[in-house]
Amino acid sequence: MIVTASRVERFNAAHRLHNPEWSDAKNAEFFGLCNNKNFHGHNYTLIVKVTGEVDPESGYLIDLKVLKNIIRKQVTDRFDHKNLSLDVEDFHKLNPTAEHIAYVAWHRIKKHLDPKFALHVTLYETERNFVEYEGR
Amino acid sequence: MIVTASRVERFNAAHRLHNPEWSDAKNAEFFGLCNNKNFHGHNYTLIVKVTGEVDPESGYLIDLKVLKNIIRKQVTDRFDHKNLSLDVEDFHKLNPTAEHIAYVAWHRIKKHLDPKFALHVTLYETERNFVEYEGR
Amino acid sequence: MIVTASRVERFNAAHRLHNPEWSDAKNAEFFGLCNNKNFHGHNYTLIVKVTGEVDPESGYLIDLKVLKNIIRKQVTDRFDHKNLSLDVEDFHKLNPTAEHIAYVAWHRIKKHLDPKFALHVTLYETERNFVEYEGR
Amino acid sequence: MIVTASRVERFNAAHRLHNPEWSDAKNAEFFGLCNNKNFHGHNYTLIVKVTGEVDPESGYLIDLKVLKNIIRKQVTDRFDHKNLSLDVEDFHKLNPTAEHIAYVAWHRIKKHLDPKFALHVTLYETERNFVEYEGR
Amino acid sequence: MIVTASRVERFNAAHRLHNPEWSDAKNAEFFGLCNNKNFHGHNYTLIVKVTGEVDPESGYLIDLKVLKNIIRKQVTDRFDHKNLSLDVEDFHKLNPTAEHIAYVAWHRIKKHLDPKFALHVTLYETERNFVEYEGR
Amino acid sequence: MIVTASRVERFNAAHRLHNPEWSDAKNAEFFGLCNNKNFHGHNYTLIVKVTGEVDPESGYLIDLKVLKNIIRKQVTDRFDHKNLSLDVEDFHKLNPTAEHIAYVAWHRIKKHLDPKFALHVTLYETERNFVEYEGR
Repeated sequence: MIVTASRVERFNAAHRLHNPEWSDAKNAEFFGLCNNKNFHGHNYTLIVKVTGEVDPESGYLIDLKVLKNIIRKQVTDRFDHKNLSLDVEDFHKLNPTAEHIAYVAWHRIKKHLDPKFALHVTLYETERNFVEYEGR
Repeated sequence: MIVTASRVERFNAAHRLHNPEWSDAKNAEFFGLCNNKNFHGHNYTLIVKVTGEVDPESGYLIDLKVLKNIIRKQVTDRFDHKNLSLDVEDFHKLNPTAEHIAYVAWHRIKKHLDPKFALHVTLYETERNFVEYEGR
Repeated sequence: MIVTASRVERFNAAHRLHNPEWSDAKNAEFFGLCNNKNFHGHNYTLIVKVTGEVDPESGYLIDLKVLKNIIRKQVTDRFDHKNLSLDVEDFHKLNPTAEHIAYVAWHRIKKHLDPKFALHVTLYETERNFVEYEGR
Repeated sequence: MIVTASRVERFNAAHRLHNPEWSDAKNAEFFGLCNNKNFHGHNYTLIVKVTGEVDPESGYLIDLKVLKNIIRKQVTDRFDHKNLSLDVEDFHKLNPTAEHIAYVAWHRIKKHLDPKFALHVTLYETERNFVEYEGR
Repeated sequence: MIVTASRVERFNAAHRLHNPEWSDAKNAEFFGLCNNKNFHGHNYTLIVKVTGEVDPESGYLIDLKVLKNIIRKQVTDRFDHKNLSLDVEDFHKLNPTAEHIAYVAWHRIKKHLDPKFALHVTLYETERNFVEYEGR
Repeated sequence: MIVTASRVERFNAAHRLHNPEWSDAKNAEFFGLCNNKNFHGHNYTLIVKVTGEVDPESGYLIDLKVLKNIIRKQVTDRFDHKNLSLDVEDFHKLNPTAEHIAYVAWHRIKKHLDPKFALHVTLYETERNFVEYEGR
């Protein structure tokens, strides 16, 4: 019995979209308001999906309390109430776009998950803009 | 033209997570609050996705009123305002975890659906915990 | 500057609606499915609104972390993953209707809140049924 | 790095489900209330998912402002506050079921999207009825 | 014990905003897209709030199944999948703005509700536009 | 006919809670994570409620497009993708708590609204924390 079990977690953070190899003018033009040098912020919602074989003894794919703790320890406790651009080392050389945040979250969680599981993350930056990454 | 058409239904039920082959201590430790011998409960949301070829005459994949009636008759009318552990025979030998409830709902609906359709169910146990099953 | 500050908390519980002074037939007829002797359950959402004068020094009406802790300690930790009818003493002599749960939550919170504040609670039993109580 | 980036847009429209090759009686029986000759309407929600390789320079899959503008110009500005059956040429020979609206939206967006991207659309007609199309 | 108990119901309808005493040009200018002569439509959400004294025997303010039936029979069954401007007599002489729809719904429900209750209705026309009426 | 008409708008911003008259230690202890010197951020949702007499000619309390434009010009365009603490003059001497943001939004809108209307604002900082202000 193959199922997917998912957990929703949230974090609130500031960031700035910026490519240091571009001129200020190009950054301003390309990233628009998101390039504000004083930062802006979002309530991010992270949905983590794990797929695999259900354990016939417990009836669980994975204990969602365990998954919640991995997500919090590896991702949301590190990002919550932080400035992603300044406070989080993962983004010192990586522009904190939603795509890159999802990529970093996927890799941080994957390392602490039993390798038998497939992993997929969805990251909502606003109610109307969201991205997905599954390790490809 | 291959499309997926989906219907959302809900039911409110009590349950207890418990493996009768484990000791009380192991059940309490593993399932935590969900093992409460007096039960607890949830507002479950069931999303049923059907995939196949659109009927060119009607422009429908499947009449969603028909799908709604299958879901209600086979699943939600049987589970709603019930104690899944005590009142629903499907769970007399199967621990009513979200994974197993999704599995049972899928099989109950599948039996009454035209076999030409693929079927996928998502079950939300809370706003932050949900599972998916598609018959594998 | 008079403001209202609010906090949303949740709990998942089983219950049974029943008046022990009525016959079984009258209970079944009046409460319908909610009278199931084996219980059913809900994901309850509790919105707690506090009204008063903003503190000019901090810019807070009340620290919402403090309010969250009062709600959890006095209400949601006591009700979550419980059977309200069996496990929670407040409902041994009080039918656990949404109205009464809101009433009990209001009184439990009020006792631990600075008396200078007005208090209002909203309790969602489902997405479509909810009640409000403000101590009158 | 393959990701999916998505944008949510909305439009409010009237429509009537009707097959002109069927008798009035058959239309009324099959489509029920949706066949009302005076039309009815919905708040439609359109979720547009684009999949491809992230641009390493910008960290974007696609600028979601660009995607928003394509969706608005090609779909939602044309459908919003319109009668799909009368005002929108795409539906003069195509019954405006949710399946067909999703199909039309997909083709209208696809034509203006870089061909390197895969495209998937979800259309909510109500909170409980929705369809998906991905060009197969 | 004074409480408010509320029920959420929905209906999907077409309408046109138009004042027959104004010129076509004035209607078009004032109501904009909402004046489309071929109509447009919405998924309306109606929240009905009833306030009064809880019945000490049942613990209910009002049986929400009874309130649901009043709302459906008096309002939503009459408005659902209809063209408010053409099919619903209440709007033959009253422009079906959200304000007027809320007013009509309030009066239709009030007539069938025990006069001891206060009544308040909220009508969402979209997720971002809504109105309230309480009989003043 | 007295009604309330409401409009929902959103903005995404960074901020830092800090009282410059307190020591760093006191700020850190009182505001906790919200005192992060590098800022954090939120997706704010602002609900603006206007109450008054419906215009019998149009059937509108107020044209919600007009209200939307006031909110955007006076509030959300000024706050969106900004750092409230650094970029918005209103908060140079006022700690940008949710309470104070609601207060500033109310005053900014009030000045541009016909004085015959009563005004109430609700500001969601997260899905679970929100405040209200109505000019008292």
